[in-house]
Amino acid sequence: MTSFDLTPQGVRGMMRAGEWQKPTSGVSSSYVQANLVVLPKSMAYDFLLFCQRNPKPCPVLDVTEMGSAIPSIVAPEADLRTDLPKYRVYREGKLEKECTDITELWTEEMVGFLLGCSFTFEQALIENGIQMRHNEEEKNVPMYKTNIQCHPAGSFEGPMVVSMRPIKQEDVVRAVQVTSRFPSVHGAPVHIGNPESIGINDINNPDFGDEVTIKEGEVPVFWACGVTPQAVAMHMKPELMITHAPGHMFITDKKNEAYGIL
Amino acid sequence: MTSFDLTPQGVRGMMRAGEWQKPTSGVSSSYVQANLVVLPKSMAYDFLLFCQRNPKPCPVLDVTEMGSAIPSIVAPEADLRTDLPKYRVYREGKLEKECTDITELWTEEMVGFLLGCSFTFEQALIENGIQMRHNEEEKNVPMYKTNIQCHPAGSFEGPMVVSMRPIKQEDVVRAVQVTSRFPSVHGAPVHIGNPESIGINDINNPDFGDEVTIKEGEVPVFWACGVTPQAVAMHMKPELMITHAPGHMFITDKKNEAYGIL
Repeated sequence: MTSFDLTPQGVRGMMRAGEWQKPTSGVSSSYVQANLVVLPKSMAYDFLLFCQRNPKPCPVLDVTEMGSAIPSIVAPEADLRTDLPKYRVYREGKLEKECTDITELWTEEMVGFLLGCSFTFEQALIENGIQMRHNEEEKNVPMYKTNIQCHPAGSFEGPMVVSMRPIKQEDVVRAVQVTSRFPSVHGAPVHIGNPESIGINDINNPDFGDEVTIKEGEVPVFWACGVTPQAVAMHMKPELMITHAPGHMFITDKKNEAYGIL
Repeated sequence: MTSFDLTPQGVRGMMRAGEWQKPTSGVSSSYVQANLVVLPKSMAYDFLLFCQRNPKPCPVLDVTEMGSAIPSIVAPEADLRTDLPKYRVYREGKLEKECTDITELWTEEMVGFLLGCSFTFEQALIENGIQMRHNEEEKNVPMYKTNIQCHPAGSFEGPMVVSMRPIKQEDVVRAVQVTSRFPSVHGAPVHIGNPESIGINDINNPDFGDEVTIKEGEVPVFWACGVTPQAVAMHMKPELMITHAPGHMFITDKKNEAYGIL
């Protein structure tokens, strides 16, 4: 059995026992993985509203009841305090530490948000014969701040962050079709082609992640990115904010295909 | 110029001036119409979360900033206090009155929610040659409480209410395809065929709206209904809750097609 075939329950059990602290790319590959954002309940309404107003960068998959660490819709037997491989803890907007268990930090004041992640639509693209350059080059996907402003909500505001994948010209239409099926995990691209039209002046110098090669005959295609809500929340310098560590996602019980709307 | 062709701005202007107090079915027909729910801010988070967890019956199109009556995403020049033809005012869960202006009731404590309405997908069905029986018979669409429980949020909970449209057997697949394109306005059906499997024991006796004829060779098809969030909120007996009067919707500046995800 490879890590592709592990069940979400099995992998989360290993994480809970401290036996799995690695990234989750490709693990339980037919299941939806999610970004985690934990915030104090005083910020929960504005954050939820921000996500509702900006569904492409912030597709909400589940929100815990206040104080609860149980994502009752996507994985009712899981515990967000222990069932991710690695967390990041931010205080007043500054990274304090990484850790593998946040039980001691979770109080009645906390609310957990799980947001869709690009692994789901990448899996769909790969199944359609469209390879991911960052996988081939063993890098992180390149991400960029854009001049596309999110709809603000309360004091949450900021630019949309996008990820970029070079796609062969002849595959661009198919890439739009395939990802349009998955609005819960960023959905269709937000932009195709010229990076400068969305405020990206140097495609070889991403704001997050790594540069990847764009070959002759390929077009840069941009999708809204789950880094957006983290960046926006961070900007507010919350007293305490906890996220997954990059690439160390929460694995839900839901199949990728369950989020295909057609 | 017929009412089909009026602009949303024009119709809302008439409503604001008290010159339009009629239902809005078919008015500005290429624009999205919306259900209105106004609640005190103390209930706003749980209601928003309830909607997020139950997107089929409760598709959120816009939420005002707390205390604001401006739906900044779908109609930034509109005012929810005056720009609907008729409102219903509920106190402690009981209908107090209908009126055409709620300016005096709107305080800093109120939040307005606009939720997608079936007019959008009905328009799409009609354009695909699928007629609406309740239109032909000049009735309200029949609606039923089901045994499908919504995902609860905080103290919001209750059964899903569905609307039913008889569809010719040979058109059922097309009806699924057409409405799947519009997840923001209830989306695909929740059930096709046997009413009893979703807890409807007498299809000729709807809980809301009117009975319509189901002809030989037609199948009852059920869609999640915007009455659900109103019914659920009403059950909480909020001190003050204001909604549109049935059929007297808010007309947004957004074209129906803008909400098609493919």
